[in-house]
Amino acid sequence: MKIALAQLNYLIGDFTGNSQKIIGAIASARKSGAELVVFAEMALTGYPAGDYLEFDDFINQTENHIQLIAAECCGITAIVGGPSRNLTGKGKPLFNSAWVLAEGKVQQLVHKSLLPNYDVFDEYRYFEPATGYSLSQINGTLMAVTICEDIWNTGEIPLYQRFPLDEAITLKPELIINIAASPFHYNQALNRRQVMRDNALKYKLPVVYVNQVGAQTELIFDGGSLACDSGGNVRTILPFFAENLQIIETEKSWYNVLPAAEVLIDETEVDIALMHDALVLGIRDYFGKMGFSKAVLGLSGGIDSAVTLALSAEALGPENVHGILLPSEFSSDHSIADAKGLALSLGCPHEIIQIADVFQTLTDTMQPFFKELPFGLTEENMQARIRAVILMALANKFGYILLNTSNKSEAAVGYGTLYGDMCGGLSVLGDVYKTDVYQLAHYINREKEIIPLNSIVKPPSAELRPGQKDSDSLPEYEVLDKLLFQYIEKRKGRMELEKMGFEPQLVARVLKMVNSNEWKRKQSPPILRVSPKAFGGGRRMPIVGKYL
Amino acid sequence: MKIALAQLNYLIGDFTGNSQKIIGAIASARKSGAELVVFAEMALTGYPAGDYLEFDDFINQTENHIQLIAAECCGITAIVGGPSRNLTGKGKPLFNSAWVLAEGKVQQLVHKSLLPNYDVFDEYRYFEPATGYSLSQINGTLMAVTICEDIWNTGEIPLYQRFPLDEAITLKPELIINIAASPFHYNQALNRRQVMRDNALKYKLPVVYVNQVGAQTELIFDGGSLACDSGGNVRTILPFFAENLQIIETEKSWYNVLPAAEVLIDETEVDIALMHDALVLGIRDYFGKMGFSKAVLGLSGGIDSAVTLALSAEALGPENVHGILLPSEFSSDHSIADAKGLALSLGCPHEIIQIADVFQTLTDTMQPFFKELPFGLTEENMQARIRAVILMALANKFGYILLNTSNKSEAAVGYGTLYGDMCGGLSVLGDVYKTDVYQLAHYINREKEIIPLNSIVKPPSAELRPGQKDSDSLPEYEVLDKLLFQYIEKRKGRMELEKMGFEPQLVARVLKMVNSNEWKRKQSPPILRVSPKAFGGGRRMPIVGKYL
Repeated sequence: MKIALAQLNYLIGDFTGNSQKIIGAIASARKSGAELVVFAEMALTGYPAGDYLEFDDFINQTENHIQLIAAECCGITAIVGGPSRNLTGKGKPLFNSAWVLAEGKVQQLVHKSLLPNYDVFDEYRYFEPATGYSLSQINGTLMAVTICEDIWNTGEIPLYQRFPLDEAITLKPELIINIAASPFHYNQALNRRQVMRDNALKYKLPVVYVNQVGAQTELIFDGGSLACDSGGNVRTILPFFAENLQIIETEKSWYNVLPAAEVLIDETEVDIALMHDALVLGIRDYFGKMGFSKAVLGLSGGIDSAVTLALSAEALGPENVHGILLPSEFSSDHSIADAKGLALSLGCPHEIIQIADVFQTLTDTMQPFFKELPFGLTEENMQARIRAVILMALANKFGYILLNTSNKSEAAVGYGTLYGDMCGGLSVLGDVYKTDVYQLAHYINREKEIIPLNSIVKPPSAELRPGQKDSDSLPEYEVLDKLLFQYIEKRKGRMELEKMGFEPQLVARVLKMVNSNEWKRKQSPPILRVSPKAFGGGRRMPIVGKYL
Repeated sequence: MKIALAQLNYLIGDFTGNSQKIIGAIASARKSGAELVVFAEMALTGYPAGDYLEFDDFINQTENHIQLIAAECCGITAIVGGPSRNLTGKGKPLFNSAWVLAEGKVQQLVHKSLLPNYDVFDEYRYFEPATGYSLSQINGTLMAVTICEDIWNTGEIPLYQRFPLDEAITLKPELIINIAASPFHYNQALNRRQVMRDNALKYKLPVVYVNQVGAQTELIFDGGSLACDSGGNVRTILPFFAENLQIIETEKSWYNVLPAAEVLIDETEVDIALMHDALVLGIRDYFGKMGFSKAVLGLSGGIDSAVTLALSAEALGPENVHGILLPSEFSSDHSIADAKGLALSLGCPHEIIQIADVFQTLTDTMQPFFKELPFGLTEENMQARIRAVILMALANKFGYILLNTSNKSEAAVGYGTLYGDMCGGLSVLGDVYKTDVYQLAHYINREKEIIPLNSIVKPPSAELRPGQKDSDSLPEYEVLDKLLFQYIEKRKGRMELEKMGFEPQLVARVLKMVNSNEWKRKQSPPILRVSPKAFGGGRRMPIVGKYL
């Protein structure tokens, strides 16, 4: 059977734009002789549509546009993801559905059974799970159409009571279709291959998998749609981070195949090339979908702002990214030179704005109120906040979006000034540990020195007081990041961390820093998610609380 | 039977503190001759504990402290809410449970069946729903122990597939117990009375209801625990917004009673006195539980900062709330006079800090980069941000928390400066529409003029350019607030709003303002929730999207 895999980039709530894309792909697929074209989960609305799903009008628009798309399905069947109403009179008002469209109308609705409700996922907020199961007959082929999580109940302790495919298989399908909206993290492509292989082998059937591509604020959908044979061998894989339409032809050779090798996953291993590409797409789509083209960011001469500038220059074009140097009396000469060198090597416009006068006037203004209290953290924060006021003034005046340059290690321990260097419309590196920022820098420099080597090798410093270094306030990043990974990604508590060999005083100190800075992170910009556990909607911690 | 209702204020994750409170109440209840003492849902951990529930260590601590509490249960039974492990080998790892403790040990675990997963609730993120049902026999009385939502499945279209009490009733219980963590909004006390009455009448049984009290960041638990007879008549109700322990004695006269009148609820009616008390508790607990005692806020002479100052003075003591006047060249004389008058009438310390010098130096610094571009929104934002830098400098220097004074109408339409007047550790009025801020002001002035009448009667203005008024940029608040209520609280879409009689152009304009400012609200402080739909964790909208 000739099946088209349509991997497209949707905009949440843009019914007109999304359905035009879908209709275009239906026409292309038909032209190429496909009998079936498969779109992603929630293709019509974009994913995640959030509480827009609670608007009756939003569901009306879904239904109207499904009719328009169905009208285009002549001589071809389309499977399109979108919400549908729960008309049973009980339970949540919606289903997360695959609409099967053919001969100009809706032929069938298949509902998702397993609703992810962990990390960034909130599906039980909106959707009722399906309980029964029926196959889809498409051009004489019996297919088990499933939606994302439906085939992911693979843990040692199953997260759900049901295994929908165990029920489907008794009906003797010839093929498994899975439509997904499965966001990127640095191991997700491997996880996905493994899950496809497991399902193919378990049910002795080929699997056709279609994912979304494109970024929706924090979430980056990486595409990587694929088709594998009954041995779990990948026969076709679509590109990552790009729209694509490909036709496969399933036939006899896809069945009774030797099993593919198991996919080996080291969950501490970060795929830097994929992470790099994900961040670039994340920036590009944030700007493109918000209707902005130009960015501004502060350049300190350090590695975080250097990597952010390089990524955004690639995403938006160097001429659209304004690097602003904001030196103070504590800035070292090499910082200014490194920042300038970077802007020049990338071809980004840059400006130097001295903050000394504003800082002095502010200090004078505050003097009667501060009295004789010594210079301290307050004055460090004042410098960071003056920089933010200047950057936001440029952003407001010229219609730029301010990019935030904080990394995940800093965000974790609260090493940053709220309303200062924590400002921005989007946090590019907020899900990248400092040690991985170095890896990104080396990756960016893989062909030539774009980021000045000096920015990479010098000890990190906020330069807010004379001779300051990050290591004055924080453990070395090599140790800190390992500890943070276990606490944040792996949810290991204090006692477990000590058992793993982390020094007890360090554990107590770092956990306290992480927990007591929840109030700051609450106010941080959205963070591009590239790990399995990012700060933001996927990690929901109380601000007021007492737990170590 | 003598039953103690223990309505206590817990701190999330504070196992030691919470279990000491619980053990203290067990001793008091026993002393008063109670056979049973009932604590709230998730009493031991506080609610909502968020992703702390994903830490194995957190559940270990729960189990350890349950044992300690059980050891105190001699001659009395206690029902204590807390998580418990799902040991069935399938499904989410936890249950939301009522631990029944007696004779020094755990006697029974009753699990919650209906898990709210809407608005601010995320219970399906952590918990597996119970499927079966068994009664609890306590001192010879058969009781149906339920947990919060278990008795709330009362809508016309039931939200859940099961009605746990329909199953329990076949086992012939003599009493319904409901333990809850049910947060305040201005109609919730009435909703709750109605639900208790409905259940009492449906099952012809008395209902004993124990709620949490106290604020957990955004969520304010109002207490109002109660016992009603089989007619739904309230026999005992505990105070709102305060800890309390009361003993009831259920006996023959509680059964076969005439039905109580239905509770009438006008969902557009705001109970200002309750809202006032909720906000005061919200402020007090935020500071107390975070370990802070002093606040700072900017006083503009307008009504929002005036009401915020009055509420926080009541919560923290006037001597602990620092009002800062930050006049600019655009500030009117009456604003300064009104702000001073307010601070004096409340007895709050105040300071006047001129922003002119800093604004001038900043303007001079930016001039070469702004070139000849005219004064505009950028310069308005610059003033608001300089004020924020000054307020945060004071907060940092002296250990104050900055209180945010924005109201819900402003937050909705984005009428505020990010990193300017949108700053703060806590937003006091972010869930109070402007028209209700006026009601609060009148309520605060109910006995004498605390808030200067001039602050109430003058037209609202941000005073960031000469002669500026809110009504230059926004519809009149009387109209705006009605429209926002239908869009935000009632989730009415554009077409429905037009059908309700709102002017189409106004609808388009306001919806666009609300949707396009999601990125700003993402970075706002936590907002004390007093309505059924507050900005924050209870309203989850995409930032990048296109939907009107």
